[in-house]
Amino acid sequence: MGNHILTELKLASLAGAGAYGLIPEGAIAIEGDEIVWAGARGDLPERYAGWAETRLGGRLVTPGLVDCHSHVVFGGNRAREFEMRLNGASYEEVARAGGGIVSTVRATREASEEALLADALGRVDALIAEGVTTLEIKSGYGLDQETELRMLRVARRIGELRPLTVVTTFLGAHAVPESHKNDPDNYIDTVCIPALRAAHGEGLVDAVDGFCEGIAFAPEQIARVFDVARELGLPVKLHAEQLSNLGGAQLAAHYGALSADHIEYLDQAGVDAMAGAGTVAVLLPGAFYTLRETQMPPVAALRRAGVPMALASDCNPGSSPLTSLLLTMNMGCTLFRMTPEEALAGVTREGAAALGLKDRGQIAAGQRADLAVWDVAEPAELAYRIGFNPLYKRIFGGQI
Amino acid sequence: MGNHILTELKLASLAGAGAYGLIPEGAIAIEGDEIVWAGARGDLPERYAGWAETRLGGRLVTPGLVDCHSHVVFGGNRAREFEMRLNGASYEEVARAGGGIVSTVRATREASEEALLADALGRVDALIAEGVTTLEIKSGYGLDQETELRMLRVARRIGELRPLTVVTTFLGAHAVPESHKNDPDNYIDTVCIPALRAAHGEGLVDAVDGFCEGIAFAPEQIARVFDVARELGLPVKLHAEQLSNLGGAQLAAHYGALSADHIEYLDQAGVDAMAGAGTVAVLLPGAFYTLRETQMPPVAALRRAGVPMALASDCNPGSSPLTSLLLTMNMGCTLFRMTPEEALAGVTREGAAALGLKDRGQIAAGQRADLAVWDVAEPAELAYRIGFNPLYKRIFGGQI
Ligand SMILES: [Zn+2]
Ligand SMILES: [Zn+2]
Repeated sequence: MGNHILTELKLASLAGAGAYGLIPEGAIAIEGDEIVWAGARGDLPERYAGWAETRLGGRLVTPGLVDCHSHVVFGGNRAREFEMRLNGASYEEVARAGGGIVSTVRATREASEEALLADALGRVDALIAEGVTTLEIKSGYGLDQETELRMLRVARRIGELRPLTVVTTFLGAHAVPESHKNDPDNYIDTVCIPALRAAHGEGLVDAVDGFCEGIAFAPEQIARVFDVARELGLPVKLHAEQLSNLGGAQLAAHYGALSADHIEYLDQAGVDAMAGAGTVAVLLPGAFYTLRETQMPPVAALRRAGVPMALASDCNPGSSPLTSLLLTMNMGCTLFRMTPEEALAGVTREGAAALGLKDRGQIAAGQRADLAVWDVAEPAELAYRIGFNPLYKRIFGGQI
Repeated sequence: MGNHILTELKLASLAGAGAYGLIPEGAIAIEGDEIVWAGARGDLPERYAGWAETRLGGRLVTPGLVDCHSHVVFGGNRAREFEMRLNGASYEEVARAGGGIVSTVRATREASEEALLADALGRVDALIAEGVTTLEIKSGYGLDQETELRMLRVARRIGELRPLTVVTTFLGAHAVPESHKNDPDNYIDTVCIPALRAAHGEGLVDAVDGFCEGIAFAPEQIARVFDVARELGLPVKLHAEQLSNLGGAQLAAHYGALSADHIEYLDQAGVDAMAGAGTVAVLLPGAFYTLRETQMPPVAALRRAGVPMALASDCNPGSSPLTSLLLTMNMGCTLFRMTPEEALAGVTREGAAALGLKDRGQIAAGQRADLAVWDVAEPAELAYRIGFNPLYKRIFGGQI
């Protein structure tokens, strides 16, 4: 686009003072892929006044949305299992029919790179259609080196094929594969960590994640993976305290983690540890909703302690087959009692923080020109409506 | 389109035997706006073989969706109230700030017919984009004759402007207006019933509804409205047992109502009365979700008694700002434990039954050619996914 200015807009900058950093009559100056100025229209410096102007008819402009926790690359789907359960099948019957994460691992291992890509792009395009400009994608349905790397390659290709920044996360410690059912330690040492090193060697890893839970891995096992991440200079994050409290968030904080995710069962010690380490709380209401959880994450305690709260889709075939970040915002408000402002910050500023990205998530000079333009009068409408997409335009790196 | 056949499709007919009335390799013959034949491709009668053929690449075809309970015509929105509540405002503070249904009544009265139409079309288009071909629209935010009629005129115009069948419902007994706060009987007799007669006189009313609840109208007041409906030859339906059990569903059944809607607090006597009268249960999970209800409608008892269960959006600005019937299906399964088959029947066959329409909601000879073609492999995927729209094509009255 070259240099240009956006005018006739309501600006929710998520930067500066006041709710949403709101400026009723705003303007934005963009040079290449970067915002060089944002503020009140009346304060626009003379030097930008002659730039090509796009008038937005009073629409709301927010930062482009950041989905900081997703598993959009996977084989198959779990609709049949969903149906079996609702038809009254027991956990054992579903397992016997090959259901559960095992079925996704099998389908992912069997799928070609092209098939994984085609399936994932459908989900990614749904997210993009709602204004997502940065998407984190995890591995974790391979649980063998070859498939973990294939998933990450697909993630990288998505970032090449779509106007979208993709951040990859290695999640080899997602579940214990059938082959190592009785020896998770062996899985960590002989499969997960070598796969991490190999993936890192190919430049496929931006961060390292794990699932710390009774049904997955113990803190000591996660710590071994994190030690390797540290050695490789990779930031870490953790699925923690989703179904019980194993102290995962404290472990993550100890490693200076970018985020601890889910955290329904987080206690005050965990909150304090996260606050101390600057670890972002990534809340995932889609999984809470789908699993019919009743234990809410400690939103009030996180708020009091000043822990930043992000919101993400957790898009995955089992516990959150969700491809709408707007609906995630509504769920954050309705189910977790976040405010609409916290919900919008959660999918912009705090989502970016959960990925360690300082160049996006706000509308301010020096930030990437990733923006979403909405047909709404008030930012609260984004979280208030359910199943409605008011996106008018999406701007990625200055390109409309 | 003239006469044509659809082939290379998986047919979920919602008619005949077996789950979903599923035929893996189906075909449909359409003459004008009517289905003249549907069944297995191999059984397609010779006489249709030469008709123009549209191949659907193995996609799933279901009846066009029916949203049998909506309030899509209204002025303003309630995003600010949503935000106030989440910021901790008390019920009184919200009321003092002009919140609640009162604010929607005020905004609707103040809105012109054109403004109401433009706003509603945005919501209607979101429903249409997910395959809705029949939509019920209620009045009920006027609570005066002029505005009630204006709402119904807007509803009729939506049916003219969009490829969509609109069914109108007069809901003058929706709430007691401020002007009659202390005399609801007077409101029923001097405003609601005269408005119903006037609206009927203009041909604006297909059915009559009410809200039977402590915060709205008592059964005796509803009965007076229903007596007039009966006199005018109009079918009735009722918002009943949403927040408490006043015996509204039994009252509705006594009047041979098409449906009783919400019914979270329905008891066995209510279930039996509905079964006896052939009254459809219209379940509204969007309101249940938004209000964070915990009392579930008696799905198992309804199932046992053979009461047909429909699902609808209840799209309204207060308790269900929801414009996705696919998400409604997911909520029906996730929150109410309906099966995916019940959910699909709920937005097709039973939705049509709740409107007294016998010519739609199934794929069979003699039915209207209202169809939805989906990019999914299994019908369960429609309810399983969250915030994703796999609609490939929508066919309304034989027109693609
Ligand atoms: Zn996850
Ligand atoms: Zn209603």
